[in-house]
Amino acid sequence: MSLLTEDAKGVFVISVTPFHPDGTIDFDSLDRVTDFYIEKGATGLTILGMMGEAPKLTQAESRAVAQRVIARAGDLPVVVGVSAPGLAAISELSKSVMDLGAAGVMIAPPGSLKTDAQIAGYYSQACAAAGEGVPVVLQDFPLSTGVQIDPAVLNRIVQELPQVVMLKHEDWPGLPKITALRRAEAAGQRRISILCGNGGIFLPEEMGRGADGAMTGFAFPEMLRQVVDLSNAGDMDRAQDIFDAYLPLVRYEQQPGAGLAVRKYVLQKRGAIASAALRSPGAPAAPEAIAEVDRLIARLTRRLKELT
Amino acid sequence: MSLLTEDAKGVFVISVTPFHPDGTIDFDSLDRVTDFYIEKGATGLTILGMMGEAPKLTQAESRAVAQRVIARAGDLPVVVGVSAPGLAAISELSKSVMDLGAAGVMIAPPGSLKTDAQIAGYYSQACAAAGEGVPVVLQDFPLSTGVQIDPAVLNRIVQELPQVVMLKHEDWPGLPKITALRRAEAAGQRRISILCGNGGIFLPEEMGRGADGAMTGFAFPEMLRQVVDLSNAGDMDRAQDIFDAYLPLVRYEQQPGAGLAVRKYVLQKRGAIASAALRSPGAPAAPEAIAEVDRLIARLTRRLKELT
Amino acid sequence: MSLLTEDAKGVFVISVTPFHPDGTIDFDSLDRVTDFYIEKGATGLTILGMMGEAPKLTQAESRAVAQRVIARAGDLPVVVGVSAPGLAAISELSKSVMDLGAAGVMIAPPGSLKTDAQIAGYYSQACAAAGEGVPVVLQDFPLSTGVQIDPAVLNRIVQELPQVVMLKHEDWPGLPKITALRRAEAAGQRRISILCGNGGIFLPEEMGRGADGAMTGFAFPEMLRQVVDLSNAGDMDRAQDIFDAYLPLVRYEQQPGAGLAVRKYVLQKRGAIASAALRSPGAPAAPEAIAEVDRLIARLTRRLKELT
Amino acid sequence: MSLLTEDAKGVFVISVTPFHPDGTIDFDSLDRVTDFYIEKGATGLTILGMMGEAPKLTQAESRAVAQRVIARAGDLPVVVGVSAPGLAAISELSKSVMDLGAAGVMIAPPGSLKTDAQIAGYYSQACAAAGEGVPVVLQDFPLSTGVQIDPAVLNRIVQELPQVVMLKHEDWPGLPKITALRRAEAAGQRRISILCGNGGIFLPEEMGRGADGAMTGFAFPEMLRQVVDLSNAGDMDRAQDIFDAYLPLVRYEQQPGAGLAVRKYVLQKRGAIASAALRSPGAPAAPEAIAEVDRLIARLTRRLKELT
Repeated sequence: MSLLTEDAKGVFVISVTPFHPDGTIDFDSLDRVTDFYIEKGATGLTILGMMGEAPKLTQAESRAVAQRVIARAGDLPVVVGVSAPGLAAISELSKSVMDLGAAGVMIAPPGSLKTDAQIAGYYSQACAAAGEGVPVVLQDFPLSTGVQIDPAVLNRIVQELPQVVMLKHEDWPGLPKITALRRAEAAGQRRISILCGNGGIFLPEEMGRGADGAMTGFAFPEMLRQVVDLSNAGDMDRAQDIFDAYLPLVRYEQQPGAGLAVRKYVLQKRGAIASAALRSPGAPAAPEAIAEVDRLIARLTRRLKELT
Repeated sequence: MSLLTEDAKGVFVISVTPFHPDGTIDFDSLDRVTDFYIEKGATGLTILGMMGEAPKLTQAESRAVAQRVIARAGDLPVVVGVSAPGLAAISELSKSVMDLGAAGVMIAPPGSLKTDAQIAGYYSQACAAAGEGVPVVLQDFPLSTGVQIDPAVLNRIVQELPQVVMLKHEDWPGLPKITALRRAEAAGQRRISILCGNGGIFLPEEMGRGADGAMTGFAFPEMLRQVVDLSNAGDMDRAQDIFDAYLPLVRYEQQPGAGLAVRKYVLQKRGAIASAALRSPGAPAAPEAIAEVDRLIARLTRRLKELT
Repeated sequence: MSLLTEDAKGVFVISVTPFHPDGTIDFDSLDRVTDFYIEKGATGLTILGMMGEAPKLTQAESRAVAQRVIARAGDLPVVVGVSAPGLAAISELSKSVMDLGAAGVMIAPPGSLKTDAQIAGYYSQACAAAGEGVPVVLQDFPLSTGVQIDPAVLNRIVQELPQVVMLKHEDWPGLPKITALRRAEAAGQRRISILCGNGGIFLPEEMGRGADGAMTGFAFPEMLRQVVDLSNAGDMDRAQDIFDAYLPLVRYEQQPGAGLAVRKYVLQKRGAIASAALRSPGAPAAPEAIAEVDRLIARLTRRLKELT
Repeated sequence: MSLLTEDAKGVFVISVTPFHPDGTIDFDSLDRVTDFYIEKGATGLTILGMMGEAPKLTQAESRAVAQRVIARAGDLPVVVGVSAPGLAAISELSKSVMDLGAAGVMIAPPGSLKTDAQIAGYYSQACAAAGEGVPVVLQDFPLSTGVQIDPAVLNRIVQELPQVVMLKHEDWPGLPKITALRRAEAAGQRRISILCGNGGIFLPEEMGRGADGAMTGFAFPEMLRQVVDLSNAGDMDRAQDIFDAYLPLVRYEQQPGAGLAVRKYVLQKRGAIASAALRSPGAPAAPEAIAEVDRLIARLTRRLKELT
C-alpha cells in the first residue's frame, strides 16, 4: 500500500469499531463495514480515531483491528489513529501499523498543551515518535481536545515538519483556518491536504474554502462523496441540495458523545454491522433517540426522491 | 408588566445589542430590532445574554438597555440576563431591572463550579441575590460555561428553589435532560417551563420531548415561532419542513463566537438594525462568511417558495 | 500621588477587604488594615485583587474602597485591580480609580484566552481600555486564570506595550520565567518591574533570580519586607532564615480558596481588622483550621526568638 | 505478597522510574532506588504513578518495571498505578501486575468526568475492570486531573465499592476532606486507609486530621517516615520540627512539572539512581534550579544538626 501524501483527496471515512453485545470485537462486522464504506464511495479509511472507540481497546486489539481493515481495504489507503498520552506508546503503535501497511498515522494533541511553543514542540516530538518518513495527519479538534491551534502555529508546523501531510480539520468555527492555510500556500508555503471532520456539518462551505474532501464518519458516506465530487465538478448548488437533505441527520449524529450510539444504530439499520453495541463505558441510543432518528431517515428517503 | 411563571411558553427571542460603528449603543436600532422581533412572532424577549454582548457593557449601559427594551416591548415579558462573577453585582442589577419592569432574570453558573453540591448551593445563593420572589431562569449552557449540570441536580434545584421557574435549555447533547425533567414532573415534581437555546438547532426534537418553546436569537425568529406553533398543533411534519429549510442557516449562525457577527449581519440585511458592528473585542463577519451567508439566504428564499 | 513605573521595588501588600459580620464593608477596619500594612513595611498597596474579594463588590463599592485606601495610604502608591469580563467595565473602573489617585491598575487575563496571539491581542486592548498612559500591572497567575503565558509572549507584550510597567509574577513553577525576562532585558529589552505573588512561597529564590520584590497578601508582611531587604543587601542566608521560620504559615495560607479565610483570621488575631468575615459566598475558617493556625503561630513566635 | 487492606499505614513511597541518558529504562538503578526507599523507611512502594513517568512507558515496559520492583521489594506491598484512558487497558495492566504479585492498583479519574454521578459511575466500572477482589487506591488529585470529588461522592464510593480500600489524598486544599471522611466513619461508615500525597507538604496537619501516613515521592523519604512515626507516637512538636527543616525542599520539589527533574537530581546526588534523566518529553533541571536545590540541601544538613 502506498503512503499518504499532500495530494490526498476525497472521502476518508472514519470507521466505527463493531462490537458484539458482550463487548468483544466483531471482526466479521469489521469486514462488512469496511466493504460498506468502500461501496458507498470511500476513497480511504481512518481507523482507531475517537469515534472508533480507540481508547477503549488494548494495544493488541488495536493492532488486530488495523491488520484486519488494512487487509480488507486492498488498495485503499488506511490512516490509523495513534494518539496516546505518551510518545513511547505512539512510537510503538505507529511502527506496528506502518509495518502492517498503513498509509499514515493521525495524532491529536494531548489536552495539557497550552502555548504556541508547546503545541509546535509537541508535533516535532510526535513526528519523531511516529517514525522517520511516516506520514502524519494532524487532528485539529479543539472541542474534544481543548487545545486551540492558531493558524500561525499550523503554518509553522507545515514549514518545519515535512512529515505532516494532512490536516484533519475540525475546529469549530474553523472556516477561516482553511482560508488562512490556503492563503499561506498561495504565498509559497508547502501545500498540504485538508480533509474535514465534524460529521461533515460544514462540508459545502469547507469545499468552497479549498478543502480537499472529508474525513469523518457520518453513517451515510455516500452523501460525503457526492458533495465532494459535485463541489469538485463546480456544481455547488446540486452539492448543497444533496447536503441539505441529509443535514437534519448530520446534525443529529454530530451530538458529542451521544452521536456515536446513533451512528452505530444507523449502520446496523443499514446492514453494515451486526450490533449497535458500544464497548463499556458507552450507552446505546435511547428509545426516544431511535424514534427520532427513524423519523429523520424516513423523511430523508422521501426528500431524496424529490431530488432525483 | 407581569412576572414570569412556570407556564411561560412560546418564543423568547434573545435580543442583540445594536452598536454604532464607533462602539456606542445604537438605541434607535434597539427600538427597531425590538419591534422586528415582536413583528416576527416573539412572545417574549431576553436581553443582556451572552449573545447580547452583555459582558461588554457597563452596568449603567446595561440598565439603559433594559429600560429601553422594557418600555418598547409593552405587554411582552422581558427576561434580563444578570449573570456576573459576584453575587453583589447580580443583586444590584436584578433589583434595578425588576424595578424597571422586567419579568424575571436569567442566571448562568460561573465556570468555577464543579460538584453537584457547589452548583445547587450556587443557585440557592443566586436566587437570594436576585431578590425575594424574583423569577429566575436557569441557563444551562455547558459548552459556554464549562459547568455540567446533572439532571438530578436540576431536579433538586426545582424542588428546593421555587423562584426557578424556567430552564433555558442548551446542553448539547441535551435531549435526554428534557425527558428526565418531564418524567420527574410526571412523578409529582413541580413543572417548570423549558425554553430551548442553541440557536434552535434541535427545536423539533426538543418540542417532541416536551419543551415549551424556544429562547434563542436566530435571526429569522419567524421560523422559531412557526415550528413551536405547528408542534403545539401536532403538525410535526410541517414543523420539520419549515425547520429543515432554515437549518443550513441555523447551523451557520450557531458557530461559537463567529455566529454573532453573522447574526448581526443578517439582522442588518433584514433592516432590523442599522449596523452589524460588534463592540470590541469582536470582529465583523469576513467577506467569505458574508458570501456564504448570502448564498444560504438566497437558497432559503427559493426553498420557502417551494414549501408554500 | 505619582504613577507606577518600571522602577517599582519592595513590597506591595495585597490588601484584604474587611467586612462586618453582616457582609457590609467595614471601612474603619479598612483604615486600620491600611495602617497595619504600612507599619509592617509595605512600600505600596494593591487593592481589589482576587484576595480582596473584588468580584463580590459592586462597582460603587469598588470605587468607595479605592477612595478610602488611596486617601489613607498617603504617599504610598496604590495599585487597583480592574480585571473584568469586559473592556467597558475595565475602562470605567480604571478611569475612576486613576482620577482618585491610583498609581496604576492590575489586569489578569480572562480564562477564555488560549493562543499566544489572543493573549497579546487582549493586553493591547486592555491597555487601551485602561486609558492612555495608565500604568498597567500584568497579573500572570495561571493556577487561577487557567491562562498560560509563554515567556515569548511576555517579551512581546513588554516590547509592544509601554504601559505595561510591572509583572505580578505568580506562575507556578515560574522561576524560569523571571530568568527568561531578565535575560531578554540583558539583551536590550525594556526592563520592567517584577513583583512576586503566590503568598511569597518562593520569595528567596525569586529575589535570587532578579525579582524586585513581592506583591502578595501574606498576613505577616514584615517577613516579606525583611526577606526583600536582606536579599537586596546580599544577606541571602539571613533572608532565608527569616523566610523558613514563616514558611509553615506561608504554606498554610497559600491554599487556594481556603487560604483567604485563614489570612483574615490571622489579621483579626493581630488586631488589623475587626472581623474575619468573608462576604458570601465564602466560609470562615473551620475550628480545626483555626487550631492548626494557632499552633503554627505559637511555633513561629518561638522560632523567631531563637533567630534573634 | 499479601493484598492491600483498609488497615494500610505508614509511608508508601512513589517511586521514580530511572532512565539512562538515552531514554531507555535503567533497571539497575531501579533496583538501587527500591533498596534506597526501603532503607530510608518505606513501608510500601507505589510505582507507575504520574511522577513515575508512567504515561511515557509502553505497556511492555510498564510490566517489566512492575515485575522488577515487586521482586526486589520482597515483603513490602507494591501498589501499581494503572490509570488509562480506557477500561480495557486498565483491565489488562491490572490483571498482569496482580499476577506478578502487586498488592493493589491505583486509579485516578479521567479528566472528562464532571458530575457526581459520572465520578461514582466511573469508579464502579474501574473497580470491575481492575478485577474482582483487586484492592483499589482512589487517587484524588484535582490539581492534575481537573476532577473535583465532593466528600459526599467519596462517601458514596466507600459505601458502594468494597474494593476501594485506600484514598491517595492530594486535594489542595484537602484537609477538610480527611475530617469529613473520618467523621462519616465515626458515624458507622467503613473505615478506609488515607495516605497523603502532594509531596508531603501538609503531612503534619494531615496526620493530625486522621491520615494513616504518606504516599508521595519526596526525595528524602526518611522525613516522611519520621513525621508519621512521631505523629503516631503523639510527639507532634518533634514531628513538626523535623518537617519544618525539610519544608523549603518539600516546597521546591512540589512545583508541578518542574518538581520531577529536581526530585531525580536529588536522588542522583544521594546515590539512589545513576542518572537524573527524564524520558522525553521532559527537561532536566536547569543550572539555576540545581544551584538553588544544592543551597537548600546544604542548609537542611546544618538545620538537622541543630535539631539533634
